[in-house]
This record gives sequence, structure tokens and C-alpha cells, in this order.
Amino acid sequence: MKAQRVEMFVCPMASPSDTSGLQRLADEGKVKPDTLVALVGKTEGTGAHDDWGRVWADVVLREWTARLLGIPVDEVASHVIFVLSGGCPGVITPHIVAVTREWVEAPDQVAGAEKRLVVGRAGSDPMPPEEVGRMGQIRKVAEATHRAMADAGLTDPHDVHLVMVKVPGLTTASIKDAEGRAKTVVSHDLTFGPEGAGVYANDAAALGVAMALGEVKESALSDAVVRRDWNLYSEVAMTSSGGEKRHGEVVVFGNSITSRSALRIGHAVTKDFIDAEGVRNALRTAGIHFSDGLPDESDLSRLVHVFAKSVIPGSDQIRGQRITLLDDTDAYQIGKALGGMLVASVTGRTTNYVSGGERNSHQGPPGGNIVAAVVRTD
Amino acid sequence: MKAQRVEMFVCPMASPSDTSGLQRLADEGKVKPDTLVALVGKTEGTGAHDDWGRVWADVVLREWTARLLGIPVDEVASHVIFVLSGGCPGVITPHIVAVTREWVEAPDQVAGAEKRLVVGRAGSDPMPPEEVGRMGQIRKVAEATHRAMADAGLTDPHDVHLVMVKVPGLTTASIKDAEGRAKTVVSHDLTFGPEGAGVYANDAAALGVAMALGEVKESALSDAVVRRDWNLYSEVAMTSSGGEKRHGEVVVFGNSITSRSALRIGHAVTKDFIDAEGVRNALRTAGIHFSDGLPDESDLSRLVHVFAKSVIPGSDQIRGQRITLLDDTDAYQIGKALGGMLVASVTGRTTNYVSGGERNSHQGPPGGNIVAAVVRTD
Amino acid sequence: MKAQRVEMFVCPMASPSDTSGLQRLADEGKVKPDTLVALVGKTEGTGAHDDWGRVWADVVLREWTARLLGIPVDEVASHVIFVLSGGCPGVITPHIVAVTREWVEAPDQVAGAEKRLVVGRAGSDPMPPEEVGRMGQIRKVAEATHRAMADAGLTDPHDVHLVMVKVPGLTTASIKDAEGRAKTVVSHDLTFGPEGAGVYANDAAALGVAMALGEVKESALSDAVVRRDWNLYSEVAMTSSGGEKRHGEVVVFGNSITSRSALRIGHAVTKDFIDAEGVRNALRTAGIHFSDGLPDESDLSRLVHVFAKSVIPGSDQIRGQRITLLDDTDAYQIGKALGGMLVASVTGRTTNYVSGGERNSHQGPPGGNIVAAVVRTD
Amino acid sequence: MKAQRVEMFVCPMASPSDTSGLQRLADEGKVKPDTLVALVGKTEGTGAHDDWGRVWADVVLREWTARLLGIPVDEVASHVIFVLSGGCPGVITPHIVAVTREWVEAPDQVAGAEKRLVVGRAGSDPMPPEEVGRMGQIRKVAEATHRAMADAGLTDPHDVHLVMVKVPGLTTASIKDAEGRAKTVVSHDLTFGPEGAGVYANDAAALGVAMALGEVKESALSDAVVRRDWNLYSEVAMTSSGGEKRHGEVVVFGNSITSRSALRIGHAVTKDFIDAEGVRNALRTAGIHFSDGLPDESDLSRLVHVFAKSVIPGSDQIRGQRITLLDDTDAYQIGKALGGMLVASVTGRTTNYVSGGERNSHQGPPGGNIVAAVVRTD
Repeated sequence: MKAQRVEMFVCPMASPSDTSGLQRLADEGKVKPDTLVALVGKTEGTGAHDDWGRVWADVVLREWTARLLGIPVDEVASHVIFVLSGGCPGVITPHIVAVTREWVEAPDQVAGAEKRLVVGRAGSDPMPPEEVGRMGQIRKVAEATHRAMADAGLTDPHDVHLVMVKVPGLTTASIKDAEGRAKTVVSHDLTFGPEGAGVYANDAAALGVAMALGEVKESALSDAVVRRDWNLYSEVAMTSSGGEKRHGEVVVFGNSITSRSALRIGHAVTKDFIDAEGVRNALRTAGIHFSDGLPDESDLSRLVHVFAKSVIPGSDQIRGQRITLLDDTDAYQIGKALGGMLVASVTGRTTNYVSGGERNSHQGPPGGNIVAAVVRTD
Repeated sequence: MKAQRVEMFVCPMASPSDTSGLQRLADEGKVKPDTLVALVGKTEGTGAHDDWGRVWADVVLREWTARLLGIPVDEVASHVIFVLSGGCPGVITPHIVAVTREWVEAPDQVAGAEKRLVVGRAGSDPMPPEEVGRMGQIRKVAEATHRAMADAGLTDPHDVHLVMVKVPGLTTASIKDAEGRAKTVVSHDLTFGPEGAGVYANDAAALGVAMALGEVKESALSDAVVRRDWNLYSEVAMTSSGGEKRHGEVVVFGNSITSRSALRIGHAVTKDFIDAEGVRNALRTAGIHFSDGLPDESDLSRLVHVFAKSVIPGSDQIRGQRITLLDDTDAYQIGKALGGMLVASVTGRTTNYVSGGERNSHQGPPGGNIVAAVVRTD
Repeated sequence: MKAQRVEMFVCPMASPSDTSGLQRLADEGKVKPDTLVALVGKTEGTGAHDDWGRVWADVVLREWTARLLGIPVDEVASHVIFVLSGGCPGVITPHIVAVTREWVEAPDQVAGAEKRLVVGRAGSDPMPPEEVGRMGQIRKVAEATHRAMADAGLTDPHDVHLVMVKVPGLTTASIKDAEGRAKTVVSHDLTFGPEGAGVYANDAAALGVAMALGEVKESALSDAVVRRDWNLYSEVAMTSSGGEKRHGEVVVFGNSITSRSALRIGHAVTKDFIDAEGVRNALRTAGIHFSDGLPDESDLSRLVHVFAKSVIPGSDQIRGQRITLLDDTDAYQIGKALGGMLVASVTGRTTNYVSGGERNSHQGPPGGNIVAAVVRTD
Repeated sequence: MKAQRVEMFVCPMASPSDTSGLQRLADEGKVKPDTLVALVGKTEGTGAHDDWGRVWADVVLREWTARLLGIPVDEVASHVIFVLSGGCPGVITPHIVAVTREWVEAPDQVAGAEKRLVVGRAGSDPMPPEEVGRMGQIRKVAEATHRAMADAGLTDPHDVHLVMVKVPGLTTASIKDAEGRAKTVVSHDLTFGPEGAGVYANDAAALGVAMALGEVKESALSDAVVRRDWNLYSEVAMTSSGGEKRHGEVVVFGNSITSRSALRIGHAVTKDFIDAEGVRNALRTAGIHFSDGLPDESDLSRLVHVFAKSVIPGSDQIRGQRITLLDDTDAYQIGKALGGMLVASVTGRTTNYVSGGERNSHQGPPGGNIVAAVVRTD
């Protein structure tokens, strides 16, 4: 039987164009043209849609990958998935994570084996602008999630702990296109504000994952519930959107009995914006033990990486007291930064993947956020 | 023997002009004209020097206090000390803390008594602009700290856990005055930037406390060390400055065997910006017990209040990894917000006093911050 | 015949609570309890919905007016209209304009008389939340505009040069109320973003004025055109909205042959965001002469006040070249500040009323903005 | 006689990496390897020191130039001077200006010839960190300015209308270096705040130009006057600094009777921050005629480019009225944006070079700013 062996390598970046960490991995043979499946990271910059730090990093990383794989830059996307989240306010170290997958020969079944990390990818059918933020997008993400699970060798949704999705958003051009064909679009607001096309796309993607994993029944879904019924959500979907894309991309992380990885993934959700215990719970599900707030020394060294969302709550109350976060001029940055602190205060390190800043989401429960952790098992 | 009985009442504020919580305390007889010694709080607004939320709150609170005490507004300052810190970014609930002190008759000495909370106040001699941020200011704060300790009935510096100080800063007018008398001033930068008059004043005040408490020897102090030698610092001084003031104000919180309070104060310093364990240590010194990261349910209800600084580290490294906080456009807000999250993630509540945002300080060790906690003992 | 004599007094404010300029006018008898009809001004602060500078100014000005009129504060609103626009970024001097109206006995008709300034006010019927940003609001503003014109003694829409309107917006509470009655609302976005309830309310109010003045035919109006068909607009409506209001308020400024004022008003629209000539045209219509870019010395002294909008264009092109204003993090502040500069660079002074910062509006043509000027005629 | 023929080509950039305009010029033979002397432009991005838009543009433009010249990237700096000013808030179109210089054979003297544009360049001696912001830097810039004038063929300072200078600033590393050699540095503040090393370096460079051109006598200069005596200034120096540089670079633009250019340059200073007439004066000195505020249609087409500073005034008063610009949270962006508007409102276009945002400078008189204009003469 062919079995997966998945690895993750976390490389801090000294600037948006710093590929030295990746190059070292390539030089050491840890990252190879046929094993690199995804590059996931946090880039320094404004975090806005015209974040040139992120754009520059994207250009440089694709060029680096093209050189590694010996292919033209415009073919890179079909070999390696890029998830770059812009903005490292506060205590989030800019970094890139190389995810590799090798196929190794393994005995068909091992008695008493533990479930270990697997990864799978899939692209979706094209999503025209009129589907963005609506059922069309939800269904296509759900379908792609199923295929990414299959690629990962996962069948039980409970084994899925993190689904990263990128989908098309809207642009001035794509809205014109849709309306030229007498179609409506979900929003004319191109920002990531509460009624912005960007968050509608993100949230449709999240509901697509929720539908694929059975977290939400298809019958409960409709155009009308997107960004309205916050009781519908996924506990494992981290999604993003970009106007320039035409189809969706899905990468699934889970645990499988067939995996030959040394890594394991777990996840949990925080109950509210200050819930450090929720972060600890995510680490616990992956196999980290705590005593008195911080991981055991020995355990901390086994923590490979944390992926967390930091969506701003829609309410101005936390545990019964008013906060003014929703009114902060810079709520988008502060919201993201606060998620970075919540995670760093638990992991004792700053190289954590934390994206967010938007208000309300179907990524995680109302007020809470998703945290996934990858741990080395030995 | 006359002994102190000190109480603290935390009132969330629904807006900068909300005195309803204080009024309720007055109506219930908990705050009385002759017992109110200080109002300490966080006000919502920009946190900048023209933060109208803070200014409005200051006006309204002084008017309220004048009515309570039955005196003109301009006499309020000589009866009650006001420490209002502007800006509640993120998860800091706007609130005001009323500190009251009663003198009760008590037996001279009680065998086996525990040390409990006492409070003392003192004003300093006038500080001309040429002394701001220099030895003149340091010595006058030290002297006032000694008198505030005496007012509190404290003699051992180890019993002092929090010293709040307000001192004069510089203004265009006071610089002109000094230079007109052929004196120099410490800075022409009126901001709270790294070479700003505001931080020089704050830091001279902190070194004054450090000198008074023996944390730093007088012989180690000179104009040249202020904001240069970061190894000189206080672990208990929280200081602020304002251009309009002419002399300093000091309020000391400590524990004394003679106190008849039901409260106890403790403090600790964080070792770096993400050190949740440092916050837990502060709560532990005051008598809170932890199991697995969060206070015990029963203990949390005994926690009265936390006072914390959130000074941004001067280094761009935390535990060996680079962060970009120093470059964040909005570092002042984000730095303050992150301190709020660090404390809230430990206390499980958002009504914490967290001030800061400036870069580097003699308030606390390099990279770390001061945290003081007040706990009910029974 | 009774005829109006309208005056405007511009008082710079040294802080949000500075009423000294108004008090001086009252002491001099220029502003009297029975002549004060409106206070219109720019207050310093963030310009956001929780702008405490504006809120504090509002409280202080209403208290001052209550004292002047000898009535309780909560009755002030029915005597004097308050239009306070928050935020003075850049070169906009915080100021308050007192508008007074006296009724004087005048001969019925004067041959060859020039049209001079008149002012009229009216309140609208209550506007439930489901009407906000929709035809209900449009029609009620139109109706109130007609009554305000009547109060001003104006019948010809061409004599109307400025209509200031305040209408209800939406709040969390009012949305809940509407949805509880099975009504929908125009938006769940409570911001002033492109799909925010605040701009929908502002724009419905602008279309209401346009309908009243015949600038847009009623038959061209529907819920669907609000913030969609930018070719429908008013050239004289400056509107704002607030969640706390229940009905609309309209104040109309125009010129009438019956007026006995020494002032005249004119207006024009700019063709795009950098059109200084549009500002000059507004001043010209009111009677200012230009030579070589700046008003004649003597003419400038006759300019009483300028009221201008600074709505950010929806396009990223000005005169064929790309600008990045739409992407500026702080576009709201910058957009307002730029309007202030455009006006100040023409008037040679900084005490101009400039509100704006939102993207796109039915207040003025696509890309352009409304400018009204009041000039002393002798 | 060999005579200069200087041209300027303004290329709007669609993104920080857009070299299409330059490439078109190269394809058309307008820019050649041996004629390109400088690339001067505005890049979109934050304008902060970690502005990745500017950094990316810098990398891409140097790579493009290296390809054009057929040399390695690290040799580009010795052939072409790069002046990239980051940040295009408001109405400043991102663009790059290619400056070319050809040497043509010309008759020795032409009776009645008009002065036309010439350009000259020079590098300075290395400037160690202890000289930054002090007399060492001032003298070395003055010396390099003299050599750049000689390179331009200019001898009379009155013929110099624009001097662009780049000098070393300070970094953590260079401060350590200086202090390790027992030298002091001008500031430990690495920001562009009022006491920041960046503005000290900029201002020493400006005073160096002023000394070279006789605008300020050497005897009036000392370390103590830098950023203290604002009556010492240059009317033609636009300067910038960067920590990574080791020596200064100077490029001088002026008019000479020997030039065979079709272009002419002129300059003026504004008297204050809203002085549109000052901008018009700059255009007039270069040969543009105005009627009623805007350039004549025909004249506007002859305007090649405007270079302007937008330094924020140190005072909070403009023409006797208070403004709050100094207190604006985002004063750096707003100050730059306002300069962009002031120029655009006069030129009727948005492709203007406007740098600034810092408070106070020896670049231009107190409160005023430098504006230079290049005009086609036929």
C-alpha cells in the first residue's frame, strides 16, 4: 500500500522576499520538487487588499517554486497551493510553512496504529461572479472539499481538522460582467466590511466546507443565510478570497490510520475572543499536555505549528462586559493582532499562523475562533 | 490605634460621561465624601493627547466629585487623585475604580495578622520645565514617594506593590519659559515618541520611584541614564505626565500588618511581551491560585482588579523571533491592545486597567511589564 | 409685510467645549433667544460615529442654548437645529456658525431689489427603520423640504442653494424592531462603508431633496436606484444621519426678493475631486469676483462662509489618471481633508465647513461635490 | 562645444512593479543606456520606512535598468540615480520620471538664447554615523552640490532650481558602530518624528545645499542650528535619507544658456500650507501663464512636471486660525495628501511628484514649501 508521509517546515522570513529558509530546506533535500504540496504563511505588510508586502512575497515565492520545480511560473499554481495571509501586526512573526507529502510503501494495516497527518488538495469548478457569496459557491466548495478529502485518503469528516480554501471574490470587472448578463451580485461593496463581497465569498466558502463535512445540512443552506444565520458554521474552515481567481482551491488536513507521518493535527474552537483555554484545548487535541497554563517544556518542543483565525466578534460584549473593539478605527489590525497575542501567550512563541480581522464569520462559532495545531508525535 | 480600611470598587462606564456606577456607590454609602481618595480608570477614545473621550470624562468626573464633596471643582484635586488613562483598544472595558480609605479604631497589634492593603498619597514640590525628564524630577518624585509611603503607613519598600505617579511634561509655553531663562530642556519633541518629552517625564518619574524604594541607587542616576540605561527600572511604578501640571502627584499601594482592609495587593513583572505566566505570577503574589492556566472559579471571584502596563519592547525580537510591532503604523494602539489581551486571557474578564503603548520604559525591566493585582482575602 | 433678515456668525472653537464665541455674540445682542434658528459647525475629533469631540460639543452647545433660551435642554431641539459635522483633519478650523433670523417690517415690493438670503426649517414625519434608505425616507424628506421652503418663503426651486438634512439611520435596536415586525432593512452594515446603513440614509435624504426641487422626477425613483444610479442627484443637498433620531430635520437656505438680509447665497458643483474652478464658481454665483485664482482682496472680506461636501469619487481615475485614494487605509479622513484643502486654497482661509469622506453619493454629481457660499452684499 | 539636451518622461505606474512605460520609452529610443541619468518617482504604498510598495518598486526598477544598461544590478547605482518617494495618498498618481541627458554638438554661443534645462550629478564622501544630522553631513552635501553643479555646467546659484539629495540616516547598527568608537549620534529616535534621525539627516542635507548655494552662510551653521533655527533654509533642496546608504547622492537641475534642451525649470516657495498662489508662482517662473486660476489650456499642455514638498508646518495656525493637523493621528499621510491636492488643484492633473509629511524642515521657509516646475518651451 502507498501511504502518505507529510512534513511541515516553518521558516521565519526576514522580509517579504526572503526565500533563504526555503532554499536551505531544498539544499538539505527536505523540500523536493515532487514533495512540495503547499506553501502557507504570514507576510508582513498592511494586510489590506493592496498589501504590497503580500503581493511581492507571492511573486517571489512563485518564482522560487518555479525554479525549484523547473517549470514556468504560470504553471506553478497547478502543482503547489499558495495560502499567503497578509499582515503581521503585533506579535506574529512573518513566516512561510512548506508542506511536503511523500508517498511511501507501507504494510496494509498496522494493528494499534495511531492516526497521523495526511493532506489532500482539489480545485473546484469555475465560479462565475453571480455565484460568489451564494449557493453556487457553497456547493462548488463542498464538492471540491469532498475531492480534497479523497485525495487525502480521508472518508470520515471527524478526521478532518483543517480545511484551507481560496475562492474568487468580486471585482469591478466581474460585477460588470455579471450585470451585463442580467445577473445580480451579492454586494457592490468590494471591501472586507460587514457587507463586503470579500467576506461574503469567505463565508460561502466556509459554509461549503461545513456542508461537505456535515457540520451544516444542505437543507439549512440558502443564499439568505450567508452572513445572516451565524449558528451555521464550520469548526475547521479557514477561507480567503481574491478578485483575480476564477475557481476555488481546497487543501484538507486530517489524521488517518494509513498515514506514515510523524505529525498529528488537532483542533478546537475558542468560546470567545479572550479564551486562552480554547487555544490550549486545540493543542491538547493534537497531543500537547499542559501544567499550569503553559505547555510542558518537552511538549512545547513537539509543537510544530498553530493555525488560528481571529475573527472579530459581532457583539460588543465579552463575558457580560462592553468592549469598544467594533468601534476601534483600526479594528481590522487590532483584531488580528489580538488573535496573535492569544495564541502566542499559550504557545510561548510568535511564529504562529493567525489570520482574521473581519467582523463575524461562518468560520467558527459566534464570537469564537478556530484553532488547529500540528504536533510531532515522537 | 487608627488603622486603614481600604476598598476598591470597579464601575464599567457606558460612555465617557457615565457616572452612574459611582453614583450608585455613593447612594449605597460605599463611597463617601471623606473616604474617596482616588479615581483610577480607563476611558474610551483615541488615547492620544487630544483624546476628547478622556478629556470629557475628566471634566465630568471632577464635576461629579465636586458635587459629592460639596466643594468647587477647582478644589477637587487637593482631595481626590485622578488617574485617567485614555484609550481602550481591543478588549479593555472602559471603567473607573473608586478607591476609598476609612480610618478605623483597631487594637495595636494582632498576633499572626496578615498584611493587607493600605494606600497613601503625596504631592511633590513644583517641577520647572528644565527639570522635566532629568534629576530634578527624579529627586522630587523620590521625595514625594517617601511621603506617600509615610501617609500609607509603610516603611519597608518590599511592602510597596504599586506606585502611580503623575508629573508635569513639557509644552510649547513651558519650553519657551525655560529657554527664556537660559535653561535647556530635555527634548523639543512634544509627542510620546522615543525621544519625546512625555516619555522622558514618565521615565524620570519611574526612576524617582525606583530611587525611593531602593530599586536603583541614587549614585547610579544622572540625567544621562534617563531613557538610555534600561537596566535601571522600577518594578512597581506606573507613571504618566501632562503638560498642564506644575507639580507631581504620587499614590502608593502596599500591604501592611496594621491594615484592617479585606484586600491584599501583589505584583510581578512579565519577562517579555507574551509572558502570560508573568501575569499569573502577579495574581499568585496577591493570593490567587491557578490550575491549568485559569484561576480557580472560586479564586477568580476574589480578584478585585488588575493594574498593568503594556510598554512596547525596544527590540524587534521576542524569544529569538522577529516581530514587526515596532514598525506597525498603529503600534501605540496595538501595543496597548495586546497588553489588554494578555491580561484578559488570564483573568477571564475585560475590566482590567492596562495603560501603555509607548516604546521602552524604566517602568519595568527591558521587554517586560509591571502587573499588580488586588485580591479580596475572604 | 414681514420680511426675513438672516445673519451668519462664524466662531472658531478652541476646543469642543468652547462656547466663548457664541457667548460674545449673545452678550453683544447679535444672537438672541428669539432669533437663533440653527447652529452649524465642524468639531474636532475622529469624525467616526463614536467621535467624543463631536458628542461633547453637542452636549455643551445644547446646554449653552438651553441657558440662552431659558428652556430645558430637551426642548432645545424644537427651537434650534443643530448640524455638527465631526472631524477637522488637515486644514479645517473647528468652528460653529450661528444662523439668526429676524422678522422685520418691510414695504411689500421694492422695484429692482436683489434676491437675498432667507432660511426655513421643517421637521418630517417619523421614519420607521424599514423606510431608512428607501422610498419612505425619500418621500418624507421631500415633503419636509417643501414645508421648509414654505417656511423660508421660497417657491421657485432655483432660488434654493443649500438644503441641510438630518435623518434617522439604523441601529442594532431599530433593526431588531423592524425585523420583529417582519420588515426588512436596507442593510445590516452599520458603518459608513459603501453598503452601510448610514450612507443609504444620507443618500435617500439627498434624493428626497432632489425630488422636492425637481432635480429628479419622482417616477425615476425607487428603492432600487438608491446608491445604484449615480446619475440621480441633488446639487444642493448636504445630508447626514444618526441612529438615535426618529424623524428628519430640514433647513433650507435660498435667496428671495422679499428678504431684507445683507447676505446672499450661491452654489455650484465641482466636476471632479481636484476642481478648484468649481469652488471658484460657487463663490462667483454668490457674487465674489476673481482675478488670477484668488478672490480680490476686497471681495474676500465679503465672503461670510463656505459649505462644501467632500465625497470620495467611486472611480479610481481623475482626468484619465489612476489615483489610489479608494485604497488608502485612512480614505475617510484623507477624503475629508482634501476637500478642506481644495476650499481653503481658493478662499485663503481655513474656517470652512467641509463634511464628507464617504464614497459616492447622491449629494452632487458622480465624482463632483457641492459647494455653497454665503456673501455679504455690501 | 558639447551641450546638454535634457528630457523628462513621465510614466504612470499601474502597480509598484510596472515598468511598461519605461520599456515603451526604451523601445521608442527615447531612453537609451547612455542617456538615462535619473529615475525619480512616487510609488504607491504606506510611505513608511517599511513601505514594501517602494521597496518592491526599487528592486524592480533597478533590475529593469540593469537589463537596459547590460550591467549587473549592483553597478546600476553608479550610472543612474534613483529617487523614489513612497506613498501616494489622495490624488497623487504613482509614476516614474525618466530623466535623460544627451550631449550634442552646439555652437559656442548663441546671441539672445534663452536659458534651458541642464542636469548634473555627484556622489559625496562617505558619511559616518556620527556626522549624520550634523556639520559633517552638511559640509559633505555642500561639497557634492558644488560638484553636481559643475557636472551640470552651472556656476551661478541663481540658475539652480532644484537639488535632490539622498544621504545616509542612522540605524541600530550604525549607532552601535558610532558609540563603539566613543562617538555620539544626533538621535536615538529612528523614526521621522520631530526628533528622529531621519529628519535630522534630511535637514542637514538641506542645509548643505543652502550652504553650497549661498542661501545660508557657513558661519551661521553649526550642529546646534539643525532643526532649531528654522530661519535657515534652502528654497531648492528636496532631500531624503535612508539607513542603508553610506554616502550622499546629489542631482542638480538648473537652467543654462549653453543648454540645447527644449525644457526649462523654475521654482518658488509657498508662503503657507494653503498657498495655491505659491504653486502658480512656481509654474509662472518656468513660463506658464495663468488667467483666472488655471493655466491657459495651451500652456497646461506645455507643463512637463511639478516637483513639490509638503512639509507640515510646525505651528497650529494658518493665517491666524487654528488647525488640528499637528494632532491628526495620521498627520504624516494627511500632510502629504494635502500637498498633492494643492498642486493638483493648480495643475489640473494628478501626476505630480509630491513628497513630505514630516513636521518642519530646512527644506523651504517656515510653514512654506518648495515647488519646482519643468515646462516645455516650444
